[in-house]
Amino acid sequence: MKLLLINGNRTEAVTEAVLAEARAVAASGTEITALSAGFGANIVFSHAENTIAGHAVLDCLAHNYAGYDAVVLAISFDSALAGARELLPIPVLGITESALLTACQLGRRVGVVTVGQVSTGLYREVFERSGVMARIAAIGTVDLATAGEYLSPQEFDARVVAAAKRLVAHDQIDVVVACGAALAGVARRARDQLGIPLVDGIGAAVRQAEALVRGNYHPRARPPGPRASMAGVSPQLAALFARD
Amino acid sequence: MKLLLINGNRTEAVTEAVLAEARAVAASGTEITALSAGFGANIVFSHAENTIAGHAVLDCLAHNYAGYDAVVLAISFDSALAGARELLPIPVLGITESALLTACQLGRRVGVVTVGQVSTGLYREVFERSGVMARIAAIGTVDLATAGEYLSPQEFDARVVAAAKRLVAHDQIDVVVACGAALAGVARRARDQLGIPLVDGIGAAVRQAEALVRGNYHPRARPPGPRASMAGVSPQLAALFARD
Amino acid sequence: MKLLLINGNRTEAVTEAVLAEARAVAASGTEITALSAGFGANIVFSHAENTIAGHAVLDCLAHNYAGYDAVVLAISFDSALAGARELLPIPVLGITESALLTACQLGRRVGVVTVGQVSTGLYREVFERSGVMARIAAIGTVDLATAGEYLSPQEFDARVVAAAKRLVAHDQIDVVVACGAALAGVARRARDQLGIPLVDGIGAAVRQAEALVRGNYHPRARPPGPRASMAGVSPQLAALFARD
Amino acid sequence: MKLLLINGNRTEAVTEAVLAEARAVAASGTEITALSAGFGANIVFSHAENTIAGHAVLDCLAHNYAGYDAVVLAISFDSALAGARELLPIPVLGITESALLTACQLGRRVGVVTVGQVSTGLYREVFERSGVMARIAAIGTVDLATAGEYLSPQEFDARVVAAAKRLVAHDQIDVVVACGAALAGVARRARDQLGIPLVDGIGAAVRQAEALVRGNYHPRARPPGPRASMAGVSPQLAALFARD
Amino acid sequence: MKLLLINGNRTEAVTEAVLAEARAVAASGTEITALSAGFGANIVFSHAENTIAGHAVLDCLAHNYAGYDAVVLAISFDSALAGARELLPIPVLGITESALLTACQLGRRVGVVTVGQVSTGLYREVFERSGVMARIAAIGTVDLATAGEYLSPQEFDARVVAAAKRLVAHDQIDVVVACGAALAGVARRARDQLGIPLVDGIGAAVRQAEALVRGNYHPRARPPGPRASMAGVSPQLAALFARD
Amino acid sequence: MKLLLINGNRTEAVTEAVLAEARAVAASGTEITALSAGFGANIVFSHAENTIAGHAVLDCLAHNYAGYDAVVLAISFDSALAGARELLPIPVLGITESALLTACQLGRRVGVVTVGQVSTGLYREVFERSGVMARIAAIGTVDLATAGEYLSPQEFDARVVAAAKRLVAHDQIDVVVACGAALAGVARRARDQLGIPLVDGIGAAVRQAEALVRGNYHPRARPPGPRASMAGVSPQLAALFARD
Repeated sequence: MKLLLINGNRTEAVTEAVLAEARAVAASGTEITALSAGFGANIVFSHAENTIAGHAVLDCLAHNYAGYDAVVLAISFDSALAGARELLPIPVLGITESALLTACQLGRRVGVVTVGQVSTGLYREVFERSGVMARIAAIGTVDLATAGEYLSPQEFDARVVAAAKRLVAHDQIDVVVACGAALAGVARRARDQLGIPLVDGIGAAVRQAEALVRGNYHPRARPPGPRASMAGVSPQLAALFARD
Repeated sequence: MKLLLINGNRTEAVTEAVLAEARAVAASGTEITALSAGFGANIVFSHAENTIAGHAVLDCLAHNYAGYDAVVLAISFDSALAGARELLPIPVLGITESALLTACQLGRRVGVVTVGQVSTGLYREVFERSGVMARIAAIGTVDLATAGEYLSPQEFDARVVAAAKRLVAHDQIDVVVACGAALAGVARRARDQLGIPLVDGIGAAVRQAEALVRGNYHPRARPPGPRASMAGVSPQLAALFARD
Repeated sequence: MKLLLINGNRTEAVTEAVLAEARAVAASGTEITALSAGFGANIVFSHAENTIAGHAVLDCLAHNYAGYDAVVLAISFDSALAGARELLPIPVLGITESALLTACQLGRRVGVVTVGQVSTGLYREVFERSGVMARIAAIGTVDLATAGEYLSPQEFDARVVAAAKRLVAHDQIDVVVACGAALAGVARRARDQLGIPLVDGIGAAVRQAEALVRGNYHPRARPPGPRASMAGVSPQLAALFARD
Repeated sequence: MKLLLINGNRTEAVTEAVLAEARAVAASGTEITALSAGFGANIVFSHAENTIAGHAVLDCLAHNYAGYDAVVLAISFDSALAGARELLPIPVLGITESALLTACQLGRRVGVVTVGQVSTGLYREVFERSGVMARIAAIGTVDLATAGEYLSPQEFDARVVAAAKRLVAHDQIDVVVACGAALAGVARRARDQLGIPLVDGIGAAVRQAEALVRGNYHPRARPPGPRASMAGVSPQLAALFARD
Repeated sequence: MKLLLINGNRTEAVTEAVLAEARAVAASGTEITALSAGFGANIVFSHAENTIAGHAVLDCLAHNYAGYDAVVLAISFDSALAGARELLPIPVLGITESALLTACQLGRRVGVVTVGQVSTGLYREVFERSGVMARIAAIGTVDLATAGEYLSPQEFDARVVAAAKRLVAHDQIDVVVACGAALAGVARRARDQLGIPLVDGIGAAVRQAEALVRGNYHPRARPPGPRASMAGVSPQLAALFARD
Repeated sequence: MKLLLINGNRTEAVTEAVLAEARAVAASGTEITALSAGFGANIVFSHAENTIAGHAVLDCLAHNYAGYDAVVLAISFDSALAGARELLPIPVLGITESALLTACQLGRRVGVVTVGQVSTGLYREVFERSGVMARIAAIGTVDLATAGEYLSPQEFDARVVAAAKRLVAHDQIDVVVACGAALAGVARRARDQLGIPLVDGIGAAVRQAEALVRGNYHPRARPPGPRASMAGVSPQLAALFARD
């Protein structure tokens, strides 16, 4: 199967990191490509940046999805997830949603570690859209001094593990989700340090994508309502809306 | 005061209708301008179209907000509302949020009438983001056979009133909200037909905007997090993110 | 327009403070009168006192509402709000509900500062009745040593600001509501100290009342059910229930 | 033990009916007195009437509670329940809360039958305050053509049973609560007609009161906050607030 | 009346303690028997142990319920409560559910003290199944160093009281529930130490059982669905499922 | 990898059906065994039967899990899921939880079709434990006249499709979950009849199990709390609790 990763921001280093991790965890026979958003913020922290990332994700999909069996949105706010699912005839996965749903199958009480106090509100809405807030028993946050730090996941590993250990100690959680595209691979690297399962988004989403493709589900791939007349967007994106 | 209306879709007829209604209900001294989104769908029914509308709204704001005292997003999905609030130093209002909050002050049990079964899911999320789902006692929907019908609000008035009367009869509601930019003015036109207050988005939002401007509140107008490096968007929009 | 403020307790100093603030924020052309409850507690802290305040508010309204265009209940527990809305043919606003709904239009995550740990449970129910608990991200409380302190709002300003700053620092809120009739004006006085908008009840409610009156909504003004036979209450209040 | 019933409205026929039923179900050794509210509506259907009933209930309690071991508020809106609990050093029970809590011990899925569509909103709030909305699986309503009908419970029995049977057939409920002081005794009279338990408020509350008295619990009987200075209420009620 | 207590674990010391307490609080005329589960864990802390306890409870009931008027499940996880209610023609009570429902009648804001951080998740689900989470304002936990400590309730009394006092001081609660079969009697022993009511499970459940029996309710006592063909369970338990 | 399926009831025909379907959907290299519960009901419809099934599932696991990489509980009430996860060092999946979580990745609004009105309450609790109630937009039920019908899934296919089509038509759902072990394979057989994805439990759970095993997560496999002393259960089950 062929899997397309779309990074909703423009930081190539993150795109490369998620691609490397995706290839590390994929089944043999899964071919993976990763692309960065064509426009928008280098890193998304806010609703405003995420709004633009949503358009960029759809645009990138419109240009590139043909020939793929599934898409993973490699940005931890699952930007444009609902819209992408309406447009494409193939499964579309968000890394945070996938990680949360995977975690729900590994324990009853899910803990979550996020990066950046500044994104508290935005993450909260992503978790609520996932529908599993009732399973999230505790949320911890690792803060960062500079945007640059965000690109050094290895620095983050220890901090994520420390935050996760605090959740284990105080909140009786059974499993931890680490949110953040740049943290790709922490679940593999820190696997043995917690005593409970650690899930990251890329690992979860790649495996879920493989499962959905093998499930041979047929998403309804057309936005509801009358056919939209699109203007001022790329021809490829406009064409996605014009399909019968 | 100067008020800017942004229609998140590209249908000039809707933009003109909301402008006319806004001027009809505004206080003397309120100057109003209305603009259509520069790109995206002619009418928004789906998450996918709404995602693009979000970018279009922010872009339109970036080009045009200077000199205004407040902005009303004249699209019933309140597209990009959270992001616009992060970016602008002036109040930003969504017509559905404003109508719901106004209705909450007119009665305990709020009924809502929407247009288009196809948008059921999208409206549901808009209502939940508003935070007042606990006050919404019933939702009715008026369906439409063609997109063209959406542009004949006068045709809709009778149907909206009929749907509202059903909510009154069966659900003991105290007040009705009619959702949909194209329905602008139904609250004035059908005021005396229900026996309970009828609220539409434009009327509510224009008055709420005037109230907020007179309140002299100072929104924090900068997205949280490190300053984003924006690319591939209009210079005006990039500049909004680059401000200190 | 003519606006009537009803203070649900009997402390004239609070009534005078809310009247002064209401006049300070009202539009030109808004004439404001303020009255204290005719019976009940000097200050309301508890459910029991609030129950009596409810009757006192309705009684005061029955005697005085004629000739007014709207009523603001100037007590932070929004005492008798639902009942007053059933009885009067004009809009009735509660200062806490108005402040919360105003705040929802200024940011996604609302913080609230209340006065008095002793009223924690009562405030909680007021917030839940408002319907916007989903938007309230954090609640802080300023305590008071004596009832007398409650009448020195200027002493409170610094404490309210300090409590609000703690919410800003720890809870990523976008806007703060200060609850308490006696705090009237803190939003104006401390406007520039937080970096985010500060909303108080009197300011919000006066402006919302002006907006509703200009909206020309027609509340259904008769309690549901068969006409009640009232006894042992003032003739004016009994007459309100006997109307057709 | 000595039990005081307070009917929050002024209809003696209801007071007599609840007294007769209370005596029919009470344990030997339980002496019961019933009093009607001294002022307010003859029957309560609305928030406005219920607000006044709240004061009337507290006033009646203040005059009469001395010497009793517990109080039952014999009005299905549990009027002034929270306030009465703050004021009295003895247990205070509401008939609807007691019936719901009793029902929760007889089955997982609770059905509720209420009287009067007009009171839908008010009942909803009573149920939410009870805290057991999560156990209420379905609500049915028996309507009434005139207030007079409300005083003929025997007429209602068949209608309540019919409504309950609909809930049984369609909603898989395990137990039914019949709300309404005037329905006192329907649980006994119609016991064998449903195949599942039927609970009414008076029966449930009298037995719960006996259980609480035997439990020898000591309610904290003083409103929170500084001691209120009460004016314009009966000396007996003022004295309740002035206690140390 | 005759009341059967079933301890869902096999620790006779706990069974004896709950029996002694039940007899201490029961009405004259109530005869009480207590039995331990015939198989399973000596003490239940986890979902896994509780699953087995569920079967053991049903099995013990099948062997012994005949001739009793009501059953109390004397284990704080209310193990098998829903299933036992389906099977028996007499009321079945859980000690935690009974304590919570009793507490709801003694104050608005309920605090809960549990024993053992390790059971946090399991208790959470018990509370949610009770349906009264909306009334639980705060939860405190008393930890234990060894399982042996669990059998010395007298040691626990001081710790339970201390935890309850913390809830009183910080969370404005009106009433406390102490969860744990082994704590039987703490409500009597520590009654005067808190200033607010303290409820334990055995006291609450015995009195509730007496109230339900006197209420003469007739539970529907047959599991829903086609008659099950049971194998590999005790003949007594199989017979319960085979009844018409 | 080696996968163990445990049917929580004793109907071999269901066990064979789920095994056949599991093998039909499994990846090459996945070896699957299926076992029926050793005791309990032939079919589970009620809480009481499900309680016994829980013990039977744990017992069957204790005897058989060694050597397997993951376990799927092939009973639609996910019986003993929480307990099994505490006990085993390998992933344990429930078919309904897996189907719901899979569906959440295929659309925003999930519809569910269940079999048997009699199990409405039990299914409701299973859905709530899954944590995704917020994503379930509608529930439909297919009823059955006899238990025998339950064993003819082919008869059910048409009815499940019809129920699903009603949800599509009226509730704007994006994806359907068909609950019921006996329905295994309906997702494959009826794949093209709905226009939206159809998910059944066995298909979803087998693929999710493969994904979790490949994820190499390490569940914490020991019940919380002191080591239980087990008696009266099979030595194999007792040994699971006695492990260090």
